[in-house]
Order: sequence, then C-alpha cells, then structure tokens
Amino acid sequence: MTPEEFRQHGYAMIDLIADYRQNIEQRGVQPTTQPGEIKAALPASPPDTAEPFEQIMGDVEKLIMPGLLHWQHPSFFGFFPSNVELSSVLGDCLSTGLGVIGLSWQSSPALTEIEEVTTDWLRDMLGLGSSWSGVIQDSASTSTLVALISARERSSDYALMHNGLQNSGAPLIVYTSAHAHSSVNKAAILAGFGQNHIRTIATDAHNAMSPQALAQAIEQDLAAGNTPCVVIATTGTTAAMAIDPLDAIGDLTQRHGLWLHVDSAMAGAAMILPECRALWDGIEKADSLVLNPHKWLGAAFDCSVYFVRDPEHLIRIMTTNPSYLQSSADGQVRNYRDWRISLGSRFRALKLWFLIREQGVSGLQARLRRDLANARWLAEQIEATEHWTLVATPALQTLCIRHEPPGLAGQALDTHTRAWAEKLNQSGDAYVTPALLDERWMVRVSIGALGTERQHVQRLWARLQTLV
Amino acid sequence: MTPEEFRQHGYAMIDLIADYRQNIEQRGVQPTTQPGEIKAALPASPPDTAEPFEQIMGDVEKLIMPGLLHWQHPSFFGFFPSNVELSSVLGDCLSTGLGVIGLSWQSSPALTEIEEVTTDWLRDMLGLGSSWSGVIQDSASTSTLVALISARERSSDYALMHNGLQNSGAPLIVYTSAHAHSSVNKAAILAGFGQNHIRTIATDAHNAMSPQALAQAIEQDLAAGNTPCVVIATTGTTAAMAIDPLDAIGDLTQRHGLWLHVDSAMAGAAMILPECRALWDGIEKADSLVLNPHKWLGAAFDCSVYFVRDPEHLIRIMTTNPSYLQSSADGQVRNYRDWRISLGSRFRALKLWFLIREQGVSGLQARLRRDLANARWLAEQIEATEHWTLVATPALQTLCIRHEPPGLAGQALDTHTRAWAEKLNQSGDAYVTPALLDERWMVRVSIGALGTERQHVQRLWARLQTLV
Ligand SMILES: Cc1ncc(COP(=O)(O)O)c(C=O)c1O
Ligand SMILES: Cc1ncc(COP(=O)(O)O)c(C=O)c1O
Repeated sequence: MTPEEFRQHGYAMIDLIADYRQNIEQRGVQPTTQPGEIKAALPASPPDTAEPFEQIMGDVEKLIMPGLLHWQHPSFFGFFPSNVELSSVLGDCLSTGLGVIGLSWQSSPALTEIEEVTTDWLRDMLGLGSSWSGVIQDSASTSTLVALISARERSSDYALMHNGLQNSGAPLIVYTSAHAHSSVNKAAILAGFGQNHIRTIATDAHNAMSPQALAQAIEQDLAAGNTPCVVIATTGTTAAMAIDPLDAIGDLTQRHGLWLHVDSAMAGAAMILPECRALWDGIEKADSLVLNPHKWLGAAFDCSVYFVRDPEHLIRIMTTNPSYLQSSADGQVRNYRDWRISLGSRFRALKLWFLIREQGVSGLQARLRRDLANARWLAEQIEATEHWTLVATPALQTLCIRHEPPGLAGQALDTHTRAWAEKLNQSGDAYVTPALLDERWMVRVSIGALGTERQHVQRLWARLQTLV
Repeated sequence: MTPEEFRQHGYAMIDLIADYRQNIEQRGVQPTTQPGEIKAALPASPPDTAEPFEQIMGDVEKLIMPGLLHWQHPSFFGFFPSNVELSSVLGDCLSTGLGVIGLSWQSSPALTEIEEVTTDWLRDMLGLGSSWSGVIQDSASTSTLVALISARERSSDYALMHNGLQNSGAPLIVYTSAHAHSSVNKAAILAGFGQNHIRTIATDAHNAMSPQALAQAIEQDLAAGNTPCVVIATTGTTAAMAIDPLDAIGDLTQRHGLWLHVDSAMAGAAMILPECRALWDGIEKADSLVLNPHKWLGAAFDCSVYFVRDPEHLIRIMTTNPSYLQSSADGQVRNYRDWRISLGSRFRALKLWFLIREQGVSGLQARLRRDLANARWLAEQIEATEHWTLVATPALQTLCIRHEPPGLAGQALDTHTRAWAEKLNQSGDAYVTPALLDERWMVRVSIGALGTERQHVQRLWARLQTLV
C-alpha cells in the first residue's frame, strides 16, 4: 500500500471508528454470532493475489462488526471497563504507524524516555512515593508472573544463576486468597512453585484476606521447615471488588522478609482520587504492584504498568546483553528489555501519554467520580427495593447483586440468577457478568464504560426490574 | 475527545503517518538524541487540566520524531527488518479503535475466529502440516518461555499441579547452542530450570548446532541420572543466520522423548518461499515453533505466532476457568486465554489478516525474493572486493561482513570494525548492527526493510568503501 493509498483508506478507517463510537448505541451489546459462524464464512486458504482494500473493509462490515461484544457500549457492565479514549486510539495508531521497536534505549530513544516520563507521571497521580519505578507490560497476568519470579529469586539468592528451583532445598511458599484473580495461581504454577506450595488464605466477611490467617499460615510453614516467599494481595478483587488490608499484611511481610506484590489491576485507577487512597493504606510496604491503565483509566489495551521498588533486582534477573544489543549509551540509560520478559516492544507509552495529556488529571478524576456516583445511585436503588440485594459491600464501581424472590434459595436461586443474566445479555440491551460468590451465583454490574451516564444506569435498573 | 474531534485529529494523524513514510529518506536513520534529552524537555508532572490536542502533536513533531531510530527507513540494515506494511497499520488501528478484548470466545467471537483463520492461513503459507495450531503471542521471547514451560510439564507429568520444580527429583535439562538468541537462556532461567541445567551444544563451521555433540550431551546427562527435557533449535540465528539441522536433531529428540522447540522468529518468514523450505527440513518432528510476522513479513509489532502440535497439552497447563470467565459456548470454541500467559488480549489478528489479504501470498513472496536477491548481490560485491570478507556463509538476507585491511588482526581489527560501523551509524546514512562472531566483532547487514530497493544496497556498498 502506498502512502497515498494509505491516506485515502486511512481517512475511511478513521471515519469507521468515529462512526462506530458515535452510533454504538444502535447496536446490541452482545452479538448473536454462533460458534464457528465467522470462521465458516471465510476461505480456508489465504488469497494468492492481492485483494482490493474495499473487499477487506467489506468483510469488516459484514463479518467482524456483527461478531463483536461491544466493550465501548455505554450499556456494557460486564467484566471490567476496558476503556479506550479516542485520544489514546490516536497515540496507539501513531505507535503502529512509526513502526519503531524498543530493544534498547538506542533502538529508539524517545520510546524509552516517554515510557519513563509517563510511568513517573502515573506514579505521582496515584500518590505513590518517588522510590517506585514503572515499566509497561502487556497484561497484569504477565506483571504478576514477573513479580513472582522476582520474589522467587530474592528468596533463593538468585538460584536462577545455578540450580534454579531444581534441588533447591526447602520449598518456597506463595500466599494469596481465594478471591485473588485466576492469573495469580496461574503465574505461581508457571513460575514453577507448584500447586502444593500455594496457600489460600481465609477471607473475612468482606471477602478480604485475613491478616490473622496469613500470620498463622506463615508460622505453620516456618514450623514445617518451608520458606515463606511471597504474598499476593489484591486491591479490588475481580468478583466482588474486595480490598485486602495492605497495612496489616505489609507488617507481616516486612517482619518475615516476604515479598509483597499488590494486584490493583482494576481498582488501582481509583487511586488517582485522593478520597480513595485509604483503600490501599500500607501500599508503601509493598515490593511491587500492578495497575492496568487499559481498564477503567482509558488507555488502549495493552497497557499494564508494573511498579517496582528495586529495579536493580529486577534487572539482575531479566538482563540479557548479547553483543548485537549492546550500545555506547548502556550504563547511562534504561534498557527496558531488562525490565520485562519480552525483548522487543512497540511504542506503548504513547497511548498513555496522549490520554493523560488530552484528558488532564482532573478530567480523568471527574470521569471516575461520575462512575462512583452512578454506582452509589444504583446501590441505593437496590438496597431500597424489595427482593433485591447487594451481596457485597460496594467498595468502588462494581456492584454484586441478586434478585431473591421469596421462597427461592440454593440451586433454584442460582438457576434464577443465571437465567435473568443470560436473558439480559441475549437481549443485547445491556451486558453483565455472572460470577460465584460464596459458592452462589450473583451478577456483577461493573459501571464505568466511557459513555456510561446516569441515564444508562437508570435504564439498566428499569430493565432489570421488568426482566426478573 | 468526541467522535467529531477524533475525525479531525484522526485525519491529521493519518497524514502524519503517510508523510512520515513518504519522506522518510530525508531523515538520518539514527537520531542524534543524547541520553536524558527528551526526558528533560518534558514537565516532571502530568498536566492537571486537559491540553489542546495541537499541543500534544506539537511535542510529537518537536520531541518524538527527532528522537527515533527509523526502522522503516530504506537504509535501515540493523537488527532485523521490523516491517509494518501500511495495510497492517490500518488493521491494527481498527483493533485499537474497536477496543474489544479477548478473554474468552464470548468476549468477542470475531477476535477469536479471525485469529484461528489467520494462523491457519499462515501455517499453510509456510507449508506446515495441518496438525499444527497457532496462537498469537506478543514476542518470540514469550513464545519460547511458553514452549519451555510446556516441555517442563510434559517431562514432569504436570508437576505444576503438585510440587512444581521444587523437590522434583532428577533435574530437567535444556539443550541449545551458543548461537541461540538471548531470549532462550532467559526463558530457561525464568522457567526455573537454573543456569546449571542449560547445556550449550557445540556448533560446526557454519555456526549450526552439532547433532553429534547434542547426542553426546544427552547421553552424558542420562548417565549422570539427569532428565533430558527439551532442545531449542534455531532456524536462522540472530548473529549469523545459522540454520540448525532440524532433521538430525529431531531424530534425537524423538528417540529420547525430548521436546523440540524451533525458534524461527526471524527466518521463518522465508518459509513462505518453497525454495527456502529445505532450510527447515525436519520441522515436522518439532513439538512447537515460533515465527514473528512482526519482523520481515510485515505485520505491525506485536505479532509473534506460536505453533503447537498438541494444543490439549498447552491448554492443560495454561487453563484458568473462574466463574466470571465461563460462558455457555465453552467446549465448542477456542478460548485463547488458555493458550498463553496473558489473559486479556487486543484484536491482534487483524493486522496480520489485513496484511495477508492486501498483499496476497504472491505479493509477500515477491518482496522476500527481492530482498534475497539484494543480499546475494551485495554478497557478490563483497566476495569480489579485496580486503572485504563475508565471515559467515549467507543463508538468507543477513550478511556478516568485515573489512580486513592488511596487517590488522585481533583487537586492532575489532577496533577498526566497531569504528567504521559507529561512523556509519552516526552519519545517519545507513544503520547496521555490529555483533560478535567467534569472539571477533563483525557487522551484520540485515537486508529487507519494506522500502529497501537495489539502489539502497548499492548506496550502502559505495558508502562502506569510502568509509573505511
Ligand atoms: C484484579 C485483577 N487482576 C488481574 C486481572 C487480569 O488482567 P490482564 O488481562 O491484564 O492479565 C484482572 C482483570 O482481568 C483483574 O481484575
Ligand atoms: C532468532 C530470534 N529469536 C528471538 C528473537 C526475539 O524476538 P522478540 O523480540 O519477539 O522476543 C529474535 C529477534 O529479536 C530472533 O532473531
């Protein structure tokens, strides 16, 4: 494609995106696509000769658009808000168009320095101390894996340089709660700890990790000759937005020399609001934390920021320095390849840099406050209405709700819950995520898509009441 | 940013990218930026109030553009071609604009099915058998980590479900060559094997892994009571584009029940040319392989395709199934979260799907053949010219060259080599990557940027001769 053809098709692509965002409410949130339908509509073999661009765009209209769950829809209340502000789209588009690659500082100086500046800005926006340094990873899953490997190597005095985890003596132990995101357990087993060495710490009535139970588990492992290694605490769990008590947990990890990693992938964004920061009191006792600007904050996926206190430790684990990657600037600059698993990277900081500048901190704060107020409004309606319950105290913008008609309990209640959620999702009017809490199904209403205003939440509430 | 503002700024962004590509030859390939310069030019704190978009774009012009190494420049001969065809830019831009997230098939059906179709297409383009299945990862580093974890779990009968690598008996051993990419050793130590359990197999005169030496190393480990686990062979090593003999290596891995992972991150693209496929004869004996369409093939970063033979095994290791990710389509569809480390993903297949369709297979083949012919031409000049040598037999489009004036050897020759490479890079006229081969510096000339025509290679060759 020549630059001139790109200009023409590029304008059309910009129009497609602008129109998509402008008219998104005309679409049902959930598609009606059946499994295999899109695949079957496409040729089994790639085209030998070039296809006209219009033909590709025709398939986008015909096959792709009707096959999407519309995450940017104002009536999307599923999973988590994965907002992509339009300014962030442009920052990301610039990254792709420039086509520069981060391998070392020298392989594109601006790519590295903008990542430094932007993660520093974010750190300050969150009220974190200046001893934290950030790096952009693809996902919280990866960030947490990096944290667990970092903990493993601190506890084992860099065993990766000799025997690794093989023949390494007393087993290293990982502590988390049953409410931790599934990526935590996955990261622990991928890092080689083994399921038998992961302790699931009991939670309290608010689904938060119990520091007493954690203390006990650590003592038990010490008594058994094991080596307590790392605690993964969560600020804002996925199912119920529970808040683990970092201050008390941090006291324990400091006393026993454990690594403390905080998963605030979703809820961390709220910490740009000073009034929310009490939720992660004690954060300064952590060794690492992850926060995904690609969720509520509004940066295009993928943009997961991993903050560490001791970058030297991280670099010692992750460093590679083959001759073909060396440059005369080494030693004076950050080489972000030594901060993550992947070597190459695109210019990922642009989408976050564009977002923060175009919105301003106060703009981002105002949007998050709007969402919190909308969530409070809906919580009030639910509390005031017969047969509806909040099954968890709402900490932020996620509500866990249930319709509990008289006489329904146990399995029958589960069937009812899942049925109305499914009916709502299939209607296309709104989208919610059912999930288990205390072994009973409930429905998560996660408020905070970019376009979600009070009227959308009101409409959802009206719809829910007619639905059940 | 409203959709209407986006339209206006979006056109400007498209123009910026089109102009950048059109006029890229007016820029020096390497910037003159000094360490810290860009960072120092930016405010230390994020803006509290929104900035006009024009101001952000002003900084792009003033700070970003002069701070880039221009990978898309026709005189870029560094590292590897990281081509971003303009059609792929549009596919990626669409992905960002739609802002949909892959968590499960249901979380955006088209995202999953286009990834299936596109990786199947790529498999067929490479001449691979139909038993391979593909998934897009962010980087070859990650793909290789996934392969090593897969091997670890096959050898240990899924120890991740109990003790992991801790107290696991006979240590598992990893085999690779000194010419393997740095990401291989990194992945092995991150996966917990430990440096002591990585064997560096001797290479032959063509820098290729010696199957005899590999056989011997396996025998030695068996005799010592260790458990040989996995071989990582490379089709197209980074420094010298060496080709490990997969057929003979595959015989050994099959005989001893080892996992064979093939790193063809860079050179795999050449396998869309039937005349190149002899280079990976034996590939069907492998268990996994990685190929980066984000390199020579022309897809925007990040697009690393990991192919496996036994997806069930991969899924058993990577699966997570918390209630909030379950859907009624499970069981009938692929849930790609179970094929990789990260949970969420953007619609990454679009950039590859756009590329293949807009270029057609024959279009991609023609470009790669052009690059191979250009490399052959330069190789001939070098061979025919006094005091210039090819220090490795060129397998594809990467040449390893040296200027060896009479009387210069050892350290003095190294100083000379590094000096002329640095002088070339600093001039901005072209960009090359110096690297070590057999403990001596040489210069890699990696031919194959999108815009690189014969004239650019001729100009490079003329420049080299005046430079030394
Ligand atoms: C608390 C928490 N941790 C981790 C994740 C996983 O994020 P990612 O998809 O970036 O791996 C999520 C959301 O999906 C989350 O809510
Ligand atoms: C042979 C080989 N393997 C692996 C890599 C690493 O690729 P990535 O940056 O995708 O991890 C490269 C290139 O950088 C390579 O040439």
